[in-house]
Amino acid sequence: MAEGTDQTAYLQAFVQGLVDGGIKDAVVCPGSRSTPLTVLLANRDEIRLWMEVDERSAGFFALGMAKAQGSSVVLVASSGTATANYYPAVVEASLSDVPLVVITADRPPELRDVGAPQVIDQVKLFSGYVKAFAEMATASTGDGMVDYAWAWGRRAAEMARSEPMGPVHCNFPLRDPLVPDLEATGRPMHSGHLPLGDKMPGVLLAPRRLDSEITNRLRELLEETANGIIVAGIHPAPDFNRDLLALARRLQYPVLADPLSQLRSDGTQDRLIISGYDAFLREPKVRAWLRPDVILRFGPMPVSKYLTQALNEWSDVPQILVDKIARWRDPNHARALNIVETAPSSLCRDLAEGSDTKDSVLRSGDWSRRWIRLDEIAFESVAAEGDGLWEGSVMAELARWLPDGSALYVGNSMPIRDLDTFWKASRGFVRIWANRGANGIDGVVSSALGASTKAGPLVLVLGDLSFYHDFNGLLASKLYHLPATIVLLNNDGGGIFSFLPQSSLPRFEELFAVPLGLDFSLGVSMYDGKFVRVRTLEQFREQMEASLGAKGLTVIEVPSDREQNVRRHRALWSAVGRQAAGMIENWEQEA
Amino acid sequence: MAEGTDQTAYLQAFVQGLVDGGIKDAVVCPGSRSTPLTVLLANRDEIRLWMEVDERSAGFFALGMAKAQGSSVVLVASSGTATANYYPAVVEASLSDVPLVVITADRPPELRDVGAPQVIDQVKLFSGYVKAFAEMATASTGDGMVDYAWAWGRRAAEMARSEPMGPVHCNFPLRDPLVPDLEATGRPMHSGHLPLGDKMPGVLLAPRRLDSEITNRLRELLEETANGIIVAGIHPAPDFNRDLLALARRLQYPVLADPLSQLRSDGTQDRLIISGYDAFLREPKVRAWLRPDVILRFGPMPVSKYLTQALNEWSDVPQILVDKIARWRDPNHARALNIVETAPSSLCRDLAEGSDTKDSVLRSGDWSRRWIRLDEIAFESVAAEGDGLWEGSVMAELARWLPDGSALYVGNSMPIRDLDTFWKASRGFVRIWANRGANGIDGVVSSALGASTKAGPLVLVLGDLSFYHDFNGLLASKLYHLPATIVLLNNDGGGIFSFLPQSSLPRFEELFAVPLGLDFSLGVSMYDGKFVRVRTLEQFREQMEASLGAKGLTVIEVPSDREQNVRRHRALWSAVGRQAAGMIENWEQEA
Repeated sequence: MAEGTDQTAYLQAFVQGLVDGGIKDAVVCPGSRSTPLTVLLANRDEIRLWMEVDERSAGFFALGMAKAQGSSVVLVASSGTATANYYPAVVEASLSDVPLVVITADRPPELRDVGAPQVIDQVKLFSGYVKAFAEMATASTGDGMVDYAWAWGRRAAEMARSEPMGPVHCNFPLRDPLVPDLEATGRPMHSGHLPLGDKMPGVLLAPRRLDSEITNRLRELLEETANGIIVAGIHPAPDFNRDLLALARRLQYPVLADPLSQLRSDGTQDRLIISGYDAFLREPKVRAWLRPDVILRFGPMPVSKYLTQALNEWSDVPQILVDKIARWRDPNHARALNIVETAPSSLCRDLAEGSDTKDSVLRSGDWSRRWIRLDEIAFESVAAEGDGLWEGSVMAELARWLPDGSALYVGNSMPIRDLDTFWKASRGFVRIWANRGANGIDGVVSSALGASTKAGPLVLVLGDLSFYHDFNGLLASKLYHLPATIVLLNNDGGGIFSFLPQSSLPRFEELFAVPLGLDFSLGVSMYDGKFVRVRTLEQFREQMEASLGAKGLTVIEVPSDREQNVRRHRALWSAVGRQAAGMIENWEQEA
Repeated sequence: MAEGTDQTAYLQAFVQGLVDGGIKDAVVCPGSRSTPLTVLLANRDEIRLWMEVDERSAGFFALGMAKAQGSSVVLVASSGTATANYYPAVVEASLSDVPLVVITADRPPELRDVGAPQVIDQVKLFSGYVKAFAEMATASTGDGMVDYAWAWGRRAAEMARSEPMGPVHCNFPLRDPLVPDLEATGRPMHSGHLPLGDKMPGVLLAPRRLDSEITNRLRELLEETANGIIVAGIHPAPDFNRDLLALARRLQYPVLADPLSQLRSDGTQDRLIISGYDAFLREPKVRAWLRPDVILRFGPMPVSKYLTQALNEWSDVPQILVDKIARWRDPNHARALNIVETAPSSLCRDLAEGSDTKDSVLRSGDWSRRWIRLDEIAFESVAAEGDGLWEGSVMAELARWLPDGSALYVGNSMPIRDLDTFWKASRGFVRIWANRGANGIDGVVSSALGASTKAGPLVLVLGDLSFYHDFNGLLASKLYHLPATIVLLNNDGGGIFSFLPQSSLPRFEELFAVPLGLDFSLGVSMYDGKFVRVRTLEQFREQMEASLGAKGLTVIEVPSDREQNVRRHRALWSAVGRQAAGMIENWEQEA
């Protein structure tokens, strides 16, 4: 090999950079062009390699892993359409702030667009969905080139996990020979020496803190406003929730806690945490009665359609949206929206501290009691309707007895909505995730299994279309003996459409529900999984208990009927609506 | 609904345009945002709807269908990551000239990038991989807007199938209500009246024809050069092959026929059609002995790595590349390359006609006999090594007795190479396809099943990794009872890597071969398919025969051992090399 073009040394420096950037896991799909990357990553004790074959599943596997551990995961693919299979996961990672370092092997410039095999244009392959794209130089160990490769490895890893986290893409033009020469001596090695020592991250972010004068004005506004609410969107960090709750207690504001805010399941139970709002805000009368005077909102929009609708009806109520970066996440285009771009935790602390002259703890609590009472009504109805095994009771049950330390991944469409409706805030500690960047039904199995490598015991609840969509994802559980419990809500089709106006269309079953009629037990066996079908709540509990203590994969199928499911949901909602309306009447009469 | 914003009328006009543009099939994935598109397409008798759930498989299903019928197929997805799942198929369609009209439903501008659910940036989602992207207007029936929608429907369908064919993408911002109002009267309907009548296409392409003076000079060059070869790359059109063969006979040039040129299997048998070159061009001595004086090449680069290498060694030999458009498909950057951008058929006819003063039929044929003899040697070795059931003999067998009118889809990695090595030109008529735009192992099952809707009986030969990758693709066979035979060459891993230098690396099995250990019989049952495992050639023949006459899906698994497979291939190649070298020696002595 010519001096100065040692591909192995060049890529070794890049991998050293990844290690120095804190990479501990790499999800790799086999390929020829990517050979030196695969081998050099496998060669590092600091990095655990996870092999996958379907790049789409691999992408989501890495996403779930990165989400669960909160730090960057590397994803490697060879050249060609293989790389395009990462697109769905890259889009989801971009929209949900998940740190991925996507590394694609490519043909060198002289073999592009000239009819050479397995070449596609990988430059900016993921368009605007990555935080950075680097078209890396062809291998060189000339002046400064080893430093350059090392710096990009470190930078990609660090950039991906800098706020807001997200995917970074490096495309490597690689030449033959592809098998790295690990024996060569006298190779220019990068020391990987970090300037501030091993324990210091490469990117030191000074915390953001609002000017104290502005903070004081915000505090005054809140303390002068008795009827305020806090809307807590998706948030991964339990630390933040402590600060948020302290502020809520001080202001005696109810906290409308999205199920993915972790507030309903992070061990800090408080009556101010309202989790039944999706049910009771369906009633227009309730929304009018609960109209607040100020809205303090954190993070992304909540899952609940009816909370979104309420926010729309309250769009002239002063709303303060706190976010790490000002992303204008407000589909209502509320007239009274303001954004505070800052670290949410420190803002909560600053707002909760301050002077004690107007101690809001002394507030009557009349306002928050309205919310608390309605929350009780919602869950009384859930308990009444929760009889027997159905899609709703699955979530209600899990909320009651999923063991501390469990992790729950939830599919999109109906499961996330059922989570919202049926998961009552509880004292248990369960981490809850869903792919809510783009709310796709794709990649859910892989995401959950990826998360299971960093948190567990893991339970995934999803519908049959979503299960089918990422059936390939089960391979990871087979290859790596990952313990996981999948609760399959099998209503043979797209259950959510039965709730929508589409359900009255001719050819509804064919065009929207699309029943697959698949006996999943066969496919699950192919992946060495255990499959059980349960018909009663008792069976469900028994099988869950057995599975949570077991190794490997268990799929617990809960057969469901789409029409009956809609009826039970509607019965619940109308019961909640009726009782809420009655309660308001009594309340007003008593007042 | 406000006058002038009738979404149904607007989309009806677009769908009318699709019909007028010749669309007959639409592959639709269910979704909420895409509801009006789905319903309005379903409403047209002219269009057959195919429902799929996994968009990635759906994309390849449409690709196979469009490839087999040679005209545009519509592909519909709802908003979100669903659309990104089309990326691999769109890339492949772009690189292999397959006409797709990709229609994605999107949120309207006011709901983009504001935290609304299931919204991703779909503008130019497929980057440079589409021939055209249209960000459609929001629905309007105002001045000229119905004409605009109609025109784009027609244009998208026509553009996709204009040469070079490829994918076109229309993104539709759609507002609630999504359920179309089919009962409304007084709606502005587009007549769909075509200016030149129903039978005339919307885009009339004047044929390209080289200036006769230049044609004459090319003819002279070829007629003066006895030792020329024709390299026929991937080409879908049997019509062209007749013209090509007439020219070859006139010039007495051997035709190195890529298996995807259809020349080996389009019923026009001729000794000039050389199909064993991948085996005998491995020998450097043979490449030197066969050095031509002119190369006439058609279409994309051939599959064969050794033909590519030979072309590289002959890069100073005048080479005339004929292509529909000048795409510089030459990874060798040959010094002596020239490109003729024209319709290949008419050029062949023009070159073959001309004056008869130098009738090349009178040539001695010594040159072409060299090639013909080597071709015989190659297939004598194939016959000798073809004993018993192994990966190589599967292709040799199929070449011998696949019935006339069959269609063969071949997976990438080893199956396409085995096709190249073992498929001897024969008198039978079998259409042969593979995804050779980007040579991915993804989407192959769906591509084949898509093709099966337009051609058949269909046989798909692929390896286990590729089968696993698009296992979801089997759903189409279940939903639509598609008759298909899948020959699964199961060597439990990536067989091609055993042929590469990677095979000597430590941890080869883990990092490259990646054996999955899947019992596919279980998964195939899930899709109502029949699964048989065969151990002998006789069993293989019997099961193939039974399957070709049967309805529905049959998977015939041929278990294979990777190491043994490599040994048998190498034995074959070395036998060919040995005998070729001996033959050359004799030939030279006799001369």
